[in-house]
Amino acid sequence: MSKLLIVGTVAFDAIETPFGKTDKILGGAATYIGLSAANFNIPSAIVSVVGDDFPEEYLTMLQKKNIDTSAVEIVKGGKTFFWSGRYHNDLNSRDTLDTQLNVLADFNPVVPSDYKDAEIVMLGNLHPLVQLSVLEQMSSKPKLAVLDTMNFWMDNALEDLMKVIAEVDVITINDEEARQLSGEYSLVRAARAIEKMGPKYIVIKKGEHGALLFHKGQIFFAPALPLEEVFDPTGAGDTFAGGFAGYLTKTGDLSFENMKKAIIHASNLASFCVEKFGTERMENLKREEVQKRLQQFRELTQFEIELTQ
Amino acid sequence: MSKLLIVGTVAFDAIETPFGKTDKILGGAATYIGLSAANFNIPSAIVSVVGDDFPEEYLTMLQKKNIDTSAVEIVKGGKTFFWSGRYHNDLNSRDTLDTQLNVLADFNPVVPSDYKDAEIVMLGNLHPLVQLSVLEQMSSKPKLAVLDTMNFWMDNALEDLMKVIAEVDVITINDEEARQLSGEYSLVRAARAIEKMGPKYIVIKKGEHGALLFHKGQIFFAPALPLEEVFDPTGAGDTFAGGFAGYLTKTGDLSFENMKKAIIHASNLASFCVEKFGTERMENLKREEVQKRLQQFRELTQFEIELTQ
Repeated sequence: MSKLLIVGTVAFDAIETPFGKTDKILGGAATYIGLSAANFNIPSAIVSVVGDDFPEEYLTMLQKKNIDTSAVEIVKGGKTFFWSGRYHNDLNSRDTLDTQLNVLADFNPVVPSDYKDAEIVMLGNLHPLVQLSVLEQMSSKPKLAVLDTMNFWMDNALEDLMKVIAEVDVITINDEEARQLSGEYSLVRAARAIEKMGPKYIVIKKGEHGALLFHKGQIFFAPALPLEEVFDPTGAGDTFAGGFAGYLTKTGDLSFENMKKAIIHASNLASFCVEKFGTERMENLKREEVQKRLQQFRELTQFEIELTQ
Repeated sequence: MSKLLIVGTVAFDAIETPFGKTDKILGGAATYIGLSAANFNIPSAIVSVVGDDFPEEYLTMLQKKNIDTSAVEIVKGGKTFFWSGRYHNDLNSRDTLDTQLNVLADFNPVVPSDYKDAEIVMLGNLHPLVQLSVLEQMSSKPKLAVLDTMNFWMDNALEDLMKVIAEVDVITINDEEARQLSGEYSLVRAARAIEKMGPKYIVIKKGEHGALLFHKGQIFFAPALPLEEVFDPTGAGDTFAGGFAGYLTKTGDLSFENMKKAIIHASNLASFCVEKFGTERMENLKREEVQKRLQQFRELTQFEIELTQ
């Protein structure tokens, strides 16, 4: 079976939403990606860094999901990356209250030797040079490299970001970021412009409004499942990316048709993530729940229309 | 074949978008509804009112599309309803610059005798009492009454609006209006609350983010077709409603499965409307273009996923 290599933050988050607030809880892009991809029962490994304030039990929880955490460096005397944010009432926007880079400031990722030939690499949101370093350590070019990033790097490290964008096969960003990166308002045009920067597949995430997959003039759309209640959007984008990469790792089929399915699985898993604070829902997600909701996605979107000429 | 009765404004619009501006051009909810429904080659009639400043050629154009305009009252010495608006850069919001009710102020709709038994009634956006009056003139209860309305009536005539909402089978409103009407932020909850007000089917239009159809706990979603360029959103919601009602009139099948198809046809037709100023695109729309884009909708949304238990 193929292997999935994940790089990204493993972190503490403190979250405020209109529905409540948390103390420091488990967070980080790689954490959400790993938990999401684990639903496909694939071998995966996380490359990341934490301080020795990071509870062993969190790593144990990830290991129990078949995620190799041996490349999560534990810095003695160091403190784990911490992010704190407050969501606005509509949950579509948020303010960052605090960011403490801590051990992330000097992070030199080391890809474990048995993952240097991983077929799929998922570069979670992080400094583009760290993402690039992971790609450079691969012994062979992965079958698929997927990049997730955000506007922060467009504002602060655009040149480095463009380097890693040029090296990957798939980029996942949100609609506003796609507009910023491309200078185009229309997402169709934005995707076309970004395709010229390197990636063959462009995934534009629109949060509650779904996600679009672009490839050589073809477009596929997956809605977000309409939910009664969104509790905490933290990690939804990472969960989406992890579901996408995880499904492709499981199937090994990188055709556009199979990527459509990956987008549906990704949307499906993200729909669970937002139902509880932090990683709670993803840690305890049952196979039957996932299957049931996939069926809901089918009912939500599938139709029969006769075309006449 | 079934007949479609349409009530709504036939009007002059003056539109400004980031791409240009128009003088007084043909507009009005009933105009867009009629032009959209005409794509299904069904008998339809418009109940409306204009002044004698309204060009005969506009009515002739509608008649050539098989739309009966004999119930469009022409008030001698009266002036036609006029609306002027300016869209913001993202085209998702607009300011009303001018509204002149003119002949609409004293409008008493008269349903033509050969449409008093119409199977489908489409109540375009208008004062709720005018909409109610049309329903009351029907000789038999229509198989399906569809109501389109907007926040203006929620703000200014809520009691009357609730009366007509209680009488119809389907309501089409946008997401913000659904939230305002129901007091619920979640669209799933909003739809459930609105269902209790009367309509069995709730259609929530999200503009460029697609449309949702709710019925007894079932949900169907149709995306808007991602377009390279949106030129003028005026009339898109009416075109959507006209496509929905037109397809149901054509097929006569009011099952949920067939309503899904109606929503896809509605989205498809609305995607054309926004490509040119005013009614221009809809006046000249070709059958082949419609069919081709339906195929695009299929490619955009259809997938195969194996479910295992």
